[in-house]
Amino acid sequence: MSNIITLLTDFGLEDPYVGLMHGVIYTINPEAKLVDLTHSIQPQRVEQGAFLLSTSYRYFPPSTVHLVVIDPGVGTSRRAIAVQIQEVGTFVGPDNGIFWQIIENEFAKGAAISCVELANPEYRLSQVSSTFHGRDIFAPAAAYLSKGVPLEKLGPIISRYHLVMQASEVPQWQIETSRKGKSLLRVQGHIMHIDHFGNLITNLPVSLLSELTEHQQQVLWLDAYQFRIMGLSRTYGYTTSTAYTSTAMGTIKKDNLIGLISSSGYVEIAIPNGNAAQEVNAKIGDSVTLTIPAS
Amino acid sequence: MSNIITLLTDFGLEDPYVGLMHGVIYTINPEAKLVDLTHSIQPQRVEQGAFLLSTSYRYFPPSTVHLVVIDPGVGTSRRAIAVQIQEVGTFVGPDNGIFWQIIENEFAKGAAISCVELANPEYRLSQVSSTFHGRDIFAPAAAYLSKGVPLEKLGPIISRYHLVMQASEVPQWQIETSRKGKSLLRVQGHIMHIDHFGNLITNLPVSLLSELTEHQQQVLWLDAYQFRIMGLSRTYGYTTSTAYTSTAMGTIKKDNLIGLISSSGYVEIAIPNGNAAQEVNAKIGDSVTLTIPAS
Amino acid sequence: MSNIITLLTDFGLEDPYVGLMHGVIYTINPEAKLVDLTHSIQPQRVEQGAFLLSTSYRYFPPSTVHLVVIDPGVGTSRRAIAVQIQEVGTFVGPDNGIFWQIIENEFAKGAAISCVELANPEYRLSQVSSTFHGRDIFAPAAAYLSKGVPLEKLGPIISRYHLVMQASEVPQWQIETSRKGKSLLRVQGHIMHIDHFGNLITNLPVSLLSELTEHQQQVLWLDAYQFRIMGLSRTYGYTTSTAYTSTAMGTIKKDNLIGLISSSGYVEIAIPNGNAAQEVNAKIGDSVTLTIPAS
Repeated sequence: MSNIITLLTDFGLEDPYVGLMHGVIYTINPEAKLVDLTHSIQPQRVEQGAFLLSTSYRYFPPSTVHLVVIDPGVGTSRRAIAVQIQEVGTFVGPDNGIFWQIIENEFAKGAAISCVELANPEYRLSQVSSTFHGRDIFAPAAAYLSKGVPLEKLGPIISRYHLVMQASEVPQWQIETSRKGKSLLRVQGHIMHIDHFGNLITNLPVSLLSELTEHQQQVLWLDAYQFRIMGLSRTYGYTTSTAYTSTAMGTIKKDNLIGLISSSGYVEIAIPNGNAAQEVNAKIGDSVTLTIPAS
Repeated sequence: MSNIITLLTDFGLEDPYVGLMHGVIYTINPEAKLVDLTHSIQPQRVEQGAFLLSTSYRYFPPSTVHLVVIDPGVGTSRRAIAVQIQEVGTFVGPDNGIFWQIIENEFAKGAAISCVELANPEYRLSQVSSTFHGRDIFAPAAAYLSKGVPLEKLGPIISRYHLVMQASEVPQWQIETSRKGKSLLRVQGHIMHIDHFGNLITNLPVSLLSELTEHQQQVLWLDAYQFRIMGLSRTYGYTTSTAYTSTAMGTIKKDNLIGLISSSGYVEIAIPNGNAAQEVNAKIGDSVTLTIPAS
Repeated sequence: MSNIITLLTDFGLEDPYVGLMHGVIYTINPEAKLVDLTHSIQPQRVEQGAFLLSTSYRYFPPSTVHLVVIDPGVGTSRRAIAVQIQEVGTFVGPDNGIFWQIIENEFAKGAAISCVELANPEYRLSQVSSTFHGRDIFAPAAAYLSKGVPLEKLGPIISRYHLVMQASEVPQWQIETSRKGKSLLRVQGHIMHIDHFGNLITNLPVSLLSELTEHQQQVLWLDAYQFRIMGLSRTYGYTTSTAYTSTAMGTIKKDNLIGLISSSGYVEIAIPNGNAAQEVNAKIGDSVTLTIPAS
């Protein structure tokens, strides 16, 4: 056992909420290694948390327990669950669709998946509040699982098909014909996350690009905000993409705004050593279109 | 020994101050498990730190050392102290009243309490600055105590009665008679803490309510800002409390603003999935009155 | 081995970037003790990070690995390096001058220094992205070094003289003659860092003052913003320095603004229990002059 437990919440760090979860975990499993992925998810934005977890879990060993508490339904009848995906990891949190994309992806690859409802009072704190299940239910469950308690001990098995599934906002595909009669592949996505540097991370997976010819990779473009960004860079340092905008004065080159193949595995829009989010006044959900000319 | 050391300061995370304390602790006790309760206490707000510690310490095993550095008097003659409360925990910090409420509460329950002044230079860093006792005095003391060094080694015993006590701002009680001739219990409190979600946590303890009949629990009310909130909810999800405000147009219902029995053990004012602090423009210290009709 | 690894970055805590580095480290070295110095360095401000590291590393045992990722050149040909300074510590990060001051200082004291380029693919993640070397190269290197892997295994040795050196902005010295014919030593520095409390930390080292007579220490002064601050205090609590400003109405005393011998080892400008940075509207790089009358 690696004993790693990751934590991902919308709790912020101004309050003792995260510290209380750490304390509950260490009390149950003093050998746990705690890794705070982030506690800055926007309040109750389940989709943002799901996205960041999906870009992170592959960097942890399969013995890791991923504890996620973004929980607008706390105190209602929404279930508390743990999901074990063989050779991938164990996921603990509310049954609100937050693990949906990961379960889909791993199931598609053939992974064995087991789920339970966290209903066994032996693996909770003795007093369970109505408003802080992170401390009272989820942290204890994660701690016991990281100690090696078998999943089935924590509550009744539930079918994967009975979990709350969230219609993941996957990019939409479309074939169009250009004015010159060429066929174009259009992929409609949006901004999923804005990072500390103001980089805009889209939901357009880099895997889209893996089968393209080198020529296609250079002639594809992104449309976002009032810009068209030609080509995708591989680094912030050597930029091979260029942005243009149309104005009353004609087309103008926009220095420094680039499209990027990001370390997260998704296409990103960035200004190297600058802040793209401030420059274009971006917010989560903004629309981005990727266009790939047919080879 | 659980080896847990919690840290609570007003240092923020922009500087290496907290990291230096972690480093000093690990150097002395490599087995320590560090839990950051929060470092976002408002600068020098001893009362806010005391409150958050009082809502947290009960979730840690008695072998835990709680290290608190909110220290407006650093470099003056204020003492550095450690307080050991049997079967509760050990508390290390400046002698400025920050542990007062905990000592009072636990003494009332019959706990044995020992205090020392952190005067022994063997359990400090070899160089003590005038401005950063967190690093030079408090972190080393906490680390040695978590390793099992007996309290008396760290300095001379001082009586509990010689510690700086802080007139805790306890809620004020009053019996009044309503216009209909019924007797009412009025409890005057205030906002102690505003959390990351904008929930307003008062100093009105939930234990106030434990002896009420079910009817009383439903007919009590909170007056705060321009609102009267009838009843207290138990969760953010199923709200059984309702808020009203008086206007020139008559009494208007205020959707979503609720009173709540919070996980901290205190009455809270909240907007489920919203931000109550922004809505009512709250600040710490704002007045809240709880009124309970006699049964 | 203490197994301590410190982390200093400009990544912030809104994203999983820091957590991913923690995860990579724990996966390679489960015994590592991770200390976050700070992740709030201003984006790409190498100089600010270098300064804060230089005030911190002496508080950690020599077996510590200091991992620094402030990396405007990621994805260019800038090298990744590890520097081992005997009896001081091991430093891992980009070759952009960030360790320059520490190497200079420790070399001047006679320390043995070894450097390698982090070129051996065995000590990286199997996939290296172009944009996140913190996760893919630096965190693995730090983890292996903290486990005791010898420096030379990580890549070819490079000479200290081939590292990128940064013209450290050291204070400038000048002897002047006052209007009364006395000789004055003027030291020109600037604000290096503004801390959470709004204290302004200069690059004027406290060691400047160690050879002064007691009289000199009392009659020296700081000129900064529109103020002259006479003398330096040793604590926030007992202030022995006083600030003045010239106005159309004559010289006015400015309460509470003090010069201070800071715990960081540098002269600081502060308002005890207040926020100097807000009061004078300070920013990093602002000019500060220290004047010492000849004895």
